[in-house]
Amino acid sequence: MALKVYVDRMSPPSRAVLLFCKVNGIEFEEILLDILKNKHTTPEYKEINPMYKLPTIVDGEFKLFESHAILIYLSCAFLGVPSHWYPSDLSKRSKLHSVLDWHHTNLHRGLGGLLFNTILGQLKGLPLNAEAAKEGEKLLVKSLTKLENFWLKDGRFLVGSFQPSIADISLVCGIMQLELLSKKDHDRILSPYKKVLQWIEDTKSVTAPHFDEVHGILFKVQKRIRERKETQSGITEMKAKL
Amino acid sequence: MALKVYVDRMSPPSRAVLLFCKVNGIEFEEILLDILKNKHTTPEYKEINPMYKLPTIVDGEFKLFESHAILIYLSCAFLGVPSHWYPSDLSKRSKLHSVLDWHHTNLHRGLGGLLFNTILGQLKGLPLNAEAAKEGEKLLVKSLTKLENFWLKDGRFLVGSFQPSIADISLVCGIMQLELLSKKDHDRILSPYKKVLQWIEDTKSVTAPHFDEVHGILFKVQKRIRERKETQSGITEMKAKL
Repeated sequence: MALKVYVDRMSPPSRAVLLFCKVNGIEFEEILLDILKNKHTTPEYKEINPMYKLPTIVDGEFKLFESHAILIYLSCAFLGVPSHWYPSDLSKRSKLHSVLDWHHTNLHRGLGGLLFNTILGQLKGLPLNAEAAKEGEKLLVKSLTKLENFWLKDGRFLVGSFQPSIADISLVCGIMQLELLSKKDHDRILSPYKKVLQWIEDTKSVTAPHFDEVHGILFKVQKRIRERKETQSGITEMKAKL
Repeated sequence: MALKVYVDRMSPPSRAVLLFCKVNGIEFEEILLDILKNKHTTPEYKEINPMYKLPTIVDGEFKLFESHAILIYLSCAFLGVPSHWYPSDLSKRSKLHSVLDWHHTNLHRGLGGLLFNTILGQLKGLPLNAEAAKEGEKLLVKSLTKLENFWLKDGRFLVGSFQPSIADISLVCGIMQLELLSKKDHDRILSPYKKVLQWIEDTKSVTAPHFDEVHGILFKVQKRIRERKETQSGITEMKAKL
């Protein structure tokens, strides 16, 4: 029985897991659950993941959620995954755990705070919260500064590495969510971080052509959002189009 | 050169790392940095941890921060640590990673939101934020429900285990921070969760006598906070006493 991967490609952790499988030639069945349409809150999915979150994998009888845990599992469970994705050397592996933990409470939280309280909350029909968006952007900018000056200080990839790891995939898929902002806001936030920009390009390049394929839906939604802003068409209309 | 452990015992992740070392007989030098007195923001400490966060370990030339990453490192680097703390079986280990990841964005975040915007922010002289405290409590209660009904569903300890792991230490040290609330608030929040309460007692019991020793300062501060509430003495006076 092939590995089952439950995802919504609009969610960065879902894209990270998909991308990792594709890059490493892991066979899987992709099950798309549209969060906007609440397809992740059904009783059937509750049996698979009682947290109602995405992504989740089911490998035979084994169920697992939380994308970092999934990426580590896949690195270890599937033969043929090159060791640079999740090194066995204790020091390197520990630094990888450190940046993945940092991601949760810094970069991921900042991105979520900014995007959920601007674009994504709006797609779900929730009221916007300018104060929370501002707080999110503050944490995001602080996190980008740490990426630039610390995590990317010594290598082409995270934690001083010259080969990509699961952390590069996870964090870059997160930052890609900024594509949903207007071009002006996207560039205002990201352009001061030259190493970060180069690292995003390097991660895209080592995971090509899968990176663009997995991010296709993101760019479709980006186009709709930017068009809407220009034409001032309503959010309901945009949702109907998706 | 002995392992160096930089901590503030008022911080749950610091206590988790200390407790783990003590329970497993790992020799270490404890370096206390008082967060209230900004001892973690010095240029000397920046060299050790540029994020200015606690805990951090230094093992020879190797520096590591983020408490989950540290607990995993210690489990692997020190001979004689029993395997139940961080099982080598891939399924068990993956479930452990999953609950540790979940901790970051649920229980830990809820606890932080509630406590930082009530008691702890006040100790740092920051303005209180009732709305953020309320949001924190909401996430905390949701997380406690998931602990009770999912993570502790099948075993005495987390993820269906009958022996403790690094996740039990990490999460219980977090929940202990609720001791800083008034007894009434503490009991109001925790008393509906019978399995959680039993699990806290079980974790205390398997890590005795170190658990109480590591939490000594927390109970001292609790006493001062509760006295202050009764006598209405000022926050400045309480800080001076600590």
